[in-house]
Parts: sequence; C-alpha cells; structure tokens
Amino acid sequence: MDHQLVVYNTLSRKKENFEPINSPFVGMYVCGPTVYGDGHLGHARPAITFDIIFRYLQFLDYKVRYVRNITDVGHLENDADEGEDKISKKARLDQLEPMEIAQYYSDRYHENMDQLNCLKPSIEPRASGHIIEQIEMIKKIIEVGLGYEVDGSVYFDVIKYSKTHEYGKLSGRVLEDLLSNTRDLDGQSEKRNPTDFALWKKAQPEHIMRWPSPWSDGFPGWHLECSAMSTKYLGEQFDIHGGGMDLLFPHHECEIAQSTACNGKESVKYWLHNNMITINGQKMGKSLGNFITLSDFFSGENKLLEQAYSPMTIRFFILQAHYRSTLDFSNEALQSAEKGLKRLMTAMDTIVNLKSSETSTSNIKELEKKCYDAMNDDFNSPILIAHLFEGVRIINSVNDGKESITAEDLTLLKKLFNDFAISILGLKNESLKNNNDLPDKLMEVILNLRQTAKTNKDYATSDKIRDELKNINIVIKDTKDGAVWSEEN
Amino acid sequence: MDHQLVVYNTLSRKKENFEPINSPFVGMYVCGPTVYGDGHLGHARPAITFDIIFRYLQFLDYKVRYVRNITDVGHLENDADEGEDKISKKARLDQLEPMEIAQYYSDRYHENMDQLNCLKPSIEPRASGHIIEQIEMIKKIIEVGLGYEVDGSVYFDVIKYSKTHEYGKLSGRVLEDLLSNTRDLDGQSEKRNPTDFALWKKAQPEHIMRWPSPWSDGFPGWHLECSAMSTKYLGEQFDIHGGGMDLLFPHHECEIAQSTACNGKESVKYWLHNNMITINGQKMGKSLGNFITLSDFFSGENKLLEQAYSPMTIRFFILQAHYRSTLDFSNEALQSAEKGLKRLMTAMDTIVNLKSSETSTSNIKELEKKCYDAMNDDFNSPILIAHLFEGVRIINSVNDGKESITAEDLTLLKKLFNDFAISILGLKNESLKNNNDLPDKLMEVILNLRQTAKTNKDYATSDKIRDELKNINIVIKDTKDGAVWSEEN
Repeated sequence: MDHQLVVYNTLSRKKENFEPINSPFVGMYVCGPTVYGDGHLGHARPAITFDIIFRYLQFLDYKVRYVRNITDVGHLENDADEGEDKISKKARLDQLEPMEIAQYYSDRYHENMDQLNCLKPSIEPRASGHIIEQIEMIKKIIEVGLGYEVDGSVYFDVIKYSKTHEYGKLSGRVLEDLLSNTRDLDGQSEKRNPTDFALWKKAQPEHIMRWPSPWSDGFPGWHLECSAMSTKYLGEQFDIHGGGMDLLFPHHECEIAQSTACNGKESVKYWLHNNMITINGQKMGKSLGNFITLSDFFSGENKLLEQAYSPMTIRFFILQAHYRSTLDFSNEALQSAEKGLKRLMTAMDTIVNLKSSETSTSNIKELEKKCYDAMNDDFNSPILIAHLFEGVRIINSVNDGKESITAEDLTLLKKLFNDFAISILGLKNESLKNNNDLPDKLMEVILNLRQTAKTNKDYATSDKIRDELKNINIVIKDTKDGAVWSEEN
Repeated sequence: MDHQLVVYNTLSRKKENFEPINSPFVGMYVCGPTVYGDGHLGHARPAITFDIIFRYLQFLDYKVRYVRNITDVGHLENDADEGEDKISKKARLDQLEPMEIAQYYSDRYHENMDQLNCLKPSIEPRASGHIIEQIEMIKKIIEVGLGYEVDGSVYFDVIKYSKTHEYGKLSGRVLEDLLSNTRDLDGQSEKRNPTDFALWKKAQPEHIMRWPSPWSDGFPGWHLECSAMSTKYLGEQFDIHGGGMDLLFPHHECEIAQSTACNGKESVKYWLHNNMITINGQKMGKSLGNFITLSDFFSGENKLLEQAYSPMTIRFFILQAHYRSTLDFSNEALQSAEKGLKRLMTAMDTIVNLKSSETSTSNIKELEKKCYDAMNDDFNSPILIAHLFEGVRIINSVNDGKESITAEDLTLLKKLFNDFAISILGLKNESLKNNNDLPDKLMEVILNLRQTAKTNKDYATSDKIRDELKNINIVIKDTKDGAVWSEEN
C-alpha cells in the first residue's frame, strides 16, 4: 500500500509531500501552554491535532521526537512586549511564588491531557529552564548585527533583518503595512522601530522572575524560548513546527527571524497550524464571558453547558472537523458528537461477536485504503471518521443478518477499527470505566430479584443468588433495613 | 486539643518541638529521583514518608511549600565525582537524547506517585533548568575562598571549610577518618584533597549535556542543585530538609557546606531522614538481582513476587513501619499488609450503616487523642494504625451488637477515620475502582437468573429483569449463543 503522506505547509500555502530531513527520524516541535490558568478548548485543539499527527507518524513507523514546551516565563500580557508577565501577575494576585503557579497549572494541564488521551511528548522543556540557551542565542543575534541593546534590554532589529530576509513570509504580513499600522506605544521608545521585538527585557525592581545576563538582570522575550529549545532538542533544522493559527503572527514569524539570524538558515521544513475554536460563533475569551475550561466540560458545571461532556466526547468533537477548519462549539454539536462516538464504540463491541460467512457483501480492503487515503491527505480526520461510520454500517448490517462477511474480512475490519479508531484517532471506550455507579446499580437489580424470590418463598432462587455472588467474592448481609453487600475480606 | 508536634532532627540527634521559622508558613525540601530508570521501593519510601508529613502539616493548618527536585543532570555513576553521568549513559545505551530519557522516567515516576496517592509537590524543579542559579552559587563560593578552579573544573575546599565549620556534623563523620580512609583515585588528582567535591565539572568532548560557564563548558556537581534550588524556592533559611538516609553522606553533608559557605549561615532547621528498605534482609540493588520496580509490584510480574500487590498495599506496608525504622520486604509481610488494609477499608464501609444507641461502650474522644499523639510524636504511623485498628474493633463490635455507640460518638468516629486514614495516611479504597471486571461478573449473574426464569417459563421474572436493566440503560439482546448485553445508545 502506498502511504505517501501529504501535509499542508503554511509557509508555502500548499500541500506538499512529507519527506523528513533524516528519515525515519522526524523532529516535531509544538507550542505548548502558558501555565497560568486552567486548560480550555483552545488548549485541547492543538494538543489533540498534534497528538493524532504524532500517533499517525509513529503508526507509519517514523521515529518521532515530539517536543512541546511549557511557557513559565516571559509571556507578557501584551504581545507588544509590555505589561506584566502572565505568571508573575497570577502569582502576585494569589500571593504565591511564580513557580508554584507554573507547577500547579502544568500539573492540571497534564491531567487534562491524560483525560483527553493525548500521548505525552518525548520532551517537555520549560522556558525558565533554558535561560542559558536563550542568552547564548541572543549573543549570536547581536554578533551578526541583528540585535541591539538599549538600557539592559535587547531587541531584534526587524528592519535590518528584512533587508536580506522576508519578514512576514509565514503570516503573509507586509512590513510596510505593519510599520504604518503600529502606533508607538508608551514605553516602546527603547525600540528603534515598533515592529522590533524583545529578546531580553531588563527586570523592573519588583519583578520576581529574573536571571543575570550580560545585559541586565532580566528575563527572555517570549518568542525566544521556542527558537532556543527547538534548536537544542531537534537541531538547527527539523521537520515539523506546529501550533495554533493565533501564533502565526507575531510568535512564529519572530521564531523564523531569530533562528534564521542565529543559524544562517531556516530551521523548519513544514509549518502546520490548527484553526481556532469559536463558541456559538463568537471568539472565546475570558473577557467575553464565554470561557469554558476543560474541567467544566467534564463536570458540566458551567452555565453555558446543558450537560457534562466526557473527555472522549470532546476529543471526538474536535476530530470531527479537519484541523485547518474553524470549529464552532455548541451544546447541539457536542451532543451529536456524543451520540456518534457511542455508535462507533457500540459497533466495536458488536464486532467481537460477529459471525463470518462464505462471502463478503462489502469490500473491506477498499475501505481500509480509503482510511489511509484520508489520513495521508493532511490528516483528514473527518473523512476518516466518515469511513469508519461506513464500517459501523457494515458491522450492524452483518449483525442483523442483512449482509455477510468472510472470516478474513472480519479480521481485517477488526484491525481497521483498532488501527484507525484506537491507535490513530486515540479514542477509547469510556462507558464502563467512567461509570463507577454501575456495580451499585447492578447490585440493586440483583438484590431486588433476591427480595422478590424471598417474598415468594422461592428460596432455591434466593440461595442461588447468594451462592453465585459468593463465587465472585461478594457477600450479602441482611439487615433490618434490607440487604447490603460488600466485597469479601 | 494540644497539637505540639515533635520531630526527630538528624542534625541534633534528638526529638525537637516543631516550630516553623515563619509560622504558619513551612518550607520543605525533599531530594527527588534521578530519572534514569523505573521507580522502585527505594523511591516509594521517601515519597510516602514526606507525603504524610506534607499531609499532616497541612492538616494542622500550616501553609506548606513542598519542593521536590528532579535530578536530570550531574549525578555521576560514582559518588566520588567520577564516571559517566547516569542519564547520559542511559541515553547513550538507548540511543536517545538525554532529555528524552529524563522526560520518560519523570513521567513514569509521576505515574507511580499518582498510583501511590502521593500529593504533588508545590514545585518540582529540574536540575538542568537551574544551571544559572548553580553557577551563581559557585561564584559566591569561590569569592569567599572555599572553591578553587583546576583546568575548567571547580571543587569545594573541604579542608579549608572545616577550619571554621564542622564538616561531618550531620552524618557524624570525622574529617580525619575520611581523609585516611579515602584513596586517591585515578582522575581525582585535580582535587587538593580527596574529600573535596566537585561544584563544576569540565565536560569531556563526548559529553552531550553541557552548558557554558566562566570556567568551562561543563555541568554542575550533583550536590549543588539541591543547595541552589532550595535557596531559590524556599529562601536562605527554611524549615525541613528531607531525604533517604543513604543521602546523609556525602550529599546532604555537602549541601550544608555549600549553603553555609554561600549564605554565611546554615539553611535547614530540621533534617529528616527516612530509613532504608531491605529485601528479604538484603540491601536492594540492580547488581544484587533483587531489584523490584513499582510497576512489577502492581502487575506481579517479577520472579521474587508471589502475586501482584496494589499501590495501596505498598503504601500501607510502608506506613506500617515508622519512617526511621528499617523495613524488610517479603511476600509474607506484603500479604499481611494487604489483609490489614482490607480489614480497615471494610470497617470504613461498615461504619456507614452503623446504628447509634443511647450510650457508648468506648471512649472515642480518647481514641482520637491517641491518634493525634501518635502523629505528633515524629509522625508515628504504625502507632496511629494500631489505634485505627482499635477503631475497627469497635466498629465491628457495634455492628455485631456486642457494643454500642452514641450518635455523637459515631459522628466523631467517622470523622476520625476520614481524617487519619484518608486525609493524613492518604489511603483510599481501591477495591471497586480497580475491579473493572465487576460489571461483567454481575451481569453474568443477572443473565443466568434470567435464563433460569425463562427455562422455568417464569416470564414475569425474565421480563422484570429486562425492564429493570433498561431503567439503568442496559440492553439485553438474545443471540444464538445466549444473551449479550451493552450499554444503551
């Protein structure tokens, strides 16, 4: 089977054959969270998008090193290099050490990622843990004449860089437009030009997170960490850089400028970006009052939610749209995702008991090829899911005796579901595991049956129930208020 | 109630009243794992020991900042500052980037800690993420004349330090003995004296993990990270430093020397050390072939294990010994811990259905006081557990109608178990959650009952079963091979 994978490269604005620089090794860097608040849908989408890319590349036998960073310093409230550090601010408000905030929200993020069944990255570097690497990078950028120091802070000279390089090539921005559109904000007067960006910022006296550097006690600019850490762990050139579309500009544009200035060449072969999530058609934002955390979804505790939605429902909902399409959240859409997922999972239960026949009425080999084709076409998960539902239809028809399947095809169909639904889409059957009440409910049914038997003086049955439960180590005890059960000592 | 907590301070070799430097705030630093292999019993014991200390201090309303580090660089195979870096070596053997090894085993460690129900520390700093802080500390130590550079490496001058300070005060070692007992090993010739230890090591050309410094491209000595990170996150003086007794010398002794040299004063008020675990009376070690990982315990897959032991069994086993006593692993001991834990958990199920009377035959208030006394006496968990078993005896006697308890005492007894067994000892009832087979087994009982009813043409009963299951969203379907069940779509 031909597995030529094609990916959409934001840089070239077209689909390209995926050919790793040093196959079978693949280096993939994805921008991770700034850890100062709970994870929300906007965190789930890139995590799940690059999780299925990670899974599929591994499925195709590539040896993938997947690096996803934790931003725990340097991300200011205002992308124009001004305002308070996001984590410092939260620490000040909560009267905690900044690293306590970063640790707490990193742990929460990891918990959410586990719930969403996202595989752990190979390396998860923290920005604050790579200050030396960032300082070394700044030194090089100054050396080649593209960084300049003003009063302890260092800025990247975008105008000078753009004389020999195309600043804006990734995001499609034009420098002249940027210059004419950018007002000279207060406090930006240190910059030669408003498009310049900070590589190092001198810390104000009240700023807690600070490190010594050749220029001042301060902290790195936000864009720098990704350039420094991707170079450290993936080399000067690597295959895939991913992230949300909101990071295209200025973050990724600045990364390209930094890495190119520093290494003398572009570092990323394929830039992949997931599109945004809207809520009932609106942008999601804390200030807009339509902010739903992942924990809210899982518990249902948010006024915008009609019910709780399980992690797999959220995952399936996200995978039902192609990663480059916008995706609008609504209760209806999630409820429909929940139903679809259940139908898929029930079919996977049904397939186990399916009986084979002499002939197949469906072409399973063809169906498998279609699944590969979907994933090979820039990881088109909605098309893949549509094919899986064709598989569901076949399973149910065979089960109802309306269609038939050979033993060989049945094996292939089972493998297809295991490969594509479980290994690649990363779905899992949560119905039983999430339902901790089920044993209690079932025991209630059993104890009711036993009570009825006793009332009818059918002691043969009531004794039989007691004995069968004893066989599975469950003890019933009759009390004044009825029977209670426990697992045996 | 008087909650005067007393802790055994390794430094003074006696029990002391616990009085935090800046109450109600408590700073606690505990030496975490070197992440180059799977967690074993030797990791579980300090983690669980300091987890119950963390839990109890919080229970007493202290505001605790608990810092536990991840050693991902600098820990050489040979404690005398020679040999390969443990993580680099594993990376070389596995052909991976060192940080990939560190990430993988950090993730595994966290998974084990979650299974053992250990709370996450407030901050979990990585050694490789604090190179600048370590370099700054070395600079200070050189400045005060207690560090010297030789060919790009920097060593701590123990002889000079000991002229004004007592090197060996924590471990009880005497410098003269150390000097006469230490051979001058190959490659140690850079040191002025064999007792000196490395603060910075120049990296050999093949050494991957390296950072620039004023002395060489190299890496920090192992002891330095804890001094640097405890100072950074807990200040120059803090309350508790914990770790395994095997770290007393040289690791903690060197930490004291470094921090004292750097800050001009001792940094730790209370040094707490947990004792070691032996396996059938022998020291545990990879080379001794008696090495059992935590995952081995949980799965039972190790030739030394007669069965699998659940995380709570391991936890309870460890808590049944005082943390300063040695603890010998054996299958018998673990099986007895498993039984004891089950008895405790069953009693906690029983207490829910207990009926109160006019009088109490036991003094629950007194029992509660004994529980506090046990914990206040240097966290004496085995004594606490003995008192909890007195509670178990009371619960079972009341349940059997042999003793009685008032409503007020019953409430107090419930609270006592919740406080001490659940919140402080961190035990949890794993029986149902770990038993994913239970719904299947119960459904088998139910379907058998239904089959019997149908065989007896007792359709009233078989219909009743179907209807009751439908009420809890379970659908039964009859097939040629018998009934199958599924959760409803």
